[in-house]
Amino acid sequence: MAKRLIECVPNFSEGRRKDVIESIVAPFKATKGCYLFDYRADEDHNRLVVSLVGEPEAIGDALVEAALTARDAIDMNAHQGGHPRIGAVDVIPFTPISNITMEECVTLSHDFGRRYQAETAIPVYFYEEAALRPERQRLEVIRKGQYEVLKDEARTNPDRHPDLGGPGLHPTAGATVIGARKFLVAFNVNLATKDVNVAKEIANAVRASKGGFCHVKGIGLALEERGLVQVSMNIVDYEKNALYRVLETIRMEAARWGVSVVETEIYGMVPAAAVLDSAAYYMQVAGFDPKQVIELKLLEMMGDDDR
Amino acid sequence: MAKRLIECVPNFSEGRRKDVIESIVAPFKATKGCYLFDYRADEDHNRLVVSLVGEPEAIGDALVEAALTARDAIDMNAHQGGHPRIGAVDVIPFTPISNITMEECVTLSHDFGRRYQAETAIPVYFYEEAALRPERQRLEVIRKGQYEVLKDEARTNPDRHPDLGGPGLHPTAGATVIGARKFLVAFNVNLATKDVNVAKEIANAVRASKGGFCHVKGIGLALEERGLVQVSMNIVDYEKNALYRVLETIRMEAARWGVSVVETEIYGMVPAAAVLDSAAYYMQVAGFDPKQVIELKLLEMMGDDDR
Repeated sequence: MAKRLIECVPNFSEGRRKDVIESIVAPFKATKGCYLFDYRADEDHNRLVVSLVGEPEAIGDALVEAALTARDAIDMNAHQGGHPRIGAVDVIPFTPISNITMEECVTLSHDFGRRYQAETAIPVYFYEEAALRPERQRLEVIRKGQYEVLKDEARTNPDRHPDLGGPGLHPTAGATVIGARKFLVAFNVNLATKDVNVAKEIANAVRASKGGFCHVKGIGLALEERGLVQVSMNIVDYEKNALYRVLETIRMEAARWGVSVVETEIYGMVPAAAVLDSAAYYMQVAGFDPKQVIELKLLEMMGDDDR
Repeated sequence: MAKRLIECVPNFSEGRRKDVIESIVAPFKATKGCYLFDYRADEDHNRLVVSLVGEPEAIGDALVEAALTARDAIDMNAHQGGHPRIGAVDVIPFTPISNITMEECVTLSHDFGRRYQAETAIPVYFYEEAALRPERQRLEVIRKGQYEVLKDEARTNPDRHPDLGGPGLHPTAGATVIGARKFLVAFNVNLATKDVNVAKEIANAVRASKGGFCHVKGIGLALEERGLVQVSMNIVDYEKNALYRVLETIRMEAARWGVSVVETEIYGMVPAAAVLDSAAYYMQVAGFDPKQVIELKLLEMMGDDDR
C-alpha cells in the first residue's frame, strides 16, 4: 500500500532567538519520514512558520518533540509580536496530499491532539474541518483577544474552554490550535490594464464572499511598477474549484473590457493533482491517471519500499 | 545533491519460460534504488520487455546480474520469435528522466557497456545517441539479418564488428545493443470525423518524415467502432516538440475541415516535465518551477536522504 502523505505547517511564537528556532526545527530535520521543506522566522511577527511534508506518524513524532522545546523556551506572558497568537505552539494544521482523505486527516488531528495534550500538558482547540464546535471552524474566533485575553477567559468562560486539557491554558505556553484543512493554492492572474477597478470587479465575480466560486478568496490590486493589475487569489479547495475553471472565468470576464490575461502566477507550493487536472482539461486528455507520471509512480513505489 | 534518475527498458529474448522470466527480473525486484515499473512477456515475440526507473548505478548492477542469468538460460541458436533480435539480452536503452543530461546518459551507456562486456563476455553495439558509428544510430541497421545473419558477419565483415568484445558474437547469447535515447511519449489525438483521410492529412502535416515537427512520428488511422479517426503519434523529444504545440497545430489543421478534437490520449508513462510544460503554457504560468510541485520536491528530498 502506498504511503499516506500530508502537509503540516506548524506556527511557533518565536521569530527572534536563533538558538531557540534551531532547537525547535531540529526534530523536523532528524525524524525519518518527516521532510522539512522550509522554515521562516519573522522578527516583526516574532513567529516561526515551518513547512513539513511526510507521513502522519513521523510528522506527529517530530511535532511533539518540537512542541516540548517550544513550551520550555517560550513564555507567552513575555511574548510580543505583530501576528495574532495564543500559544508557544500556536497552530498545527494538517493537510491531505496523497493517499489520505480529509476525513482521515480530521481523525488524525483528533488522535494527534489527544497525544499532544497528554505529552505536553498544553491545552488544545480544534479548528477548521476538525472543529468540535461549529464556531471554532474559524481560527479568528478561537484566537479572539489573543493570549492576553484568552488566558483568563479560557478559565472563566465555558464558551472559550479548550477542547482538550482545560479549563484554562498552560501557564507559560498558552494553548495550541490543531486542525485539518485543504491545501491552499495561491494563484494570481495578471491583466493587461492599469485600471484597478477591472481587477476588483473580476475578483468580485469569482470570489465566494461575493457569490462567485465557493472556495475562492480574492482581491483586485494594482501592480503599479509593471503597469498591470492583478486578481490575487487563494484557491481554498482546488478539487472543487479547479485552477483552469477560475482562470477561464477570469479570462471571460476580462473580455468585457477588452482586457487580456498577461500571465498567471502559482505562488509557493502546489500539489501535483492541481496542475495535472488543469493540464488534462486543456489538453482534453481522456482517462488520465496521475500514476502515468513517472515521478509520481516512483514516489509511490519508494513509499512502499521500507514497509 | 538530488539523485539522478533514468528510465531503462531492457529487452530479453525470452517470452515463454515463466521460470526463466522470473529469474531474469529477480535482480530488478531485489536491488535497492532500482524500481521495477513493469515487465511483460510476449509469447509470440518470445520476448520480455522490462521497464525500470531509478539510479544509474543501481540499475546497472541489476542489469549485469539479469544479463548473466539470461546469457546462461537462453541459446540464440535455438531461439524463435516474431520480433527482430540479435541477442539473449537484445537491447538496453538508457533514458534521462531527472537531474541527468543526455550527454551524461551517453557517457553512462559507454561506461556501462564496458563493464557489461567485461563481466558477461557478451559483445556490445552502441546505438542511438550513444552510437560510435553514425550508421549505428539506427537499431535496424545493427540488427539487419538478425542473429542468424549477424553471427557470421560480425566475425567476417569489419562493418559489422561489435563496438566492444568482437569480432564475432557470444556463441549462445549473441550480442547486446546498448545506448541512450530520449523518453518517447505516446500521444494520440481523436478527431470528430469518420473520414480517415483527415487524420492522414493531419499526420502528414505534423510528422517529421513529411516535413512537420522534427521529433514527431505519426500516422492517421480510423477508430471504426467509435466512428472517429485518430492521429497516433510518438513524440520522440517532448522538450523540443512540446505536447501542447503539437496538439494546437493539429487543432488548427483540423479546422480546415471543420473537424474538432474530441479527446486526446497519453498512452503509458510520461515524465512530469512533459505535462507540466503544457500546463504552464495553457495557464500562462510565469516562471513556473517543477520544484513548486510538492511531490516532485519530496522526491528530490527523499533522493538526498540516504547519501
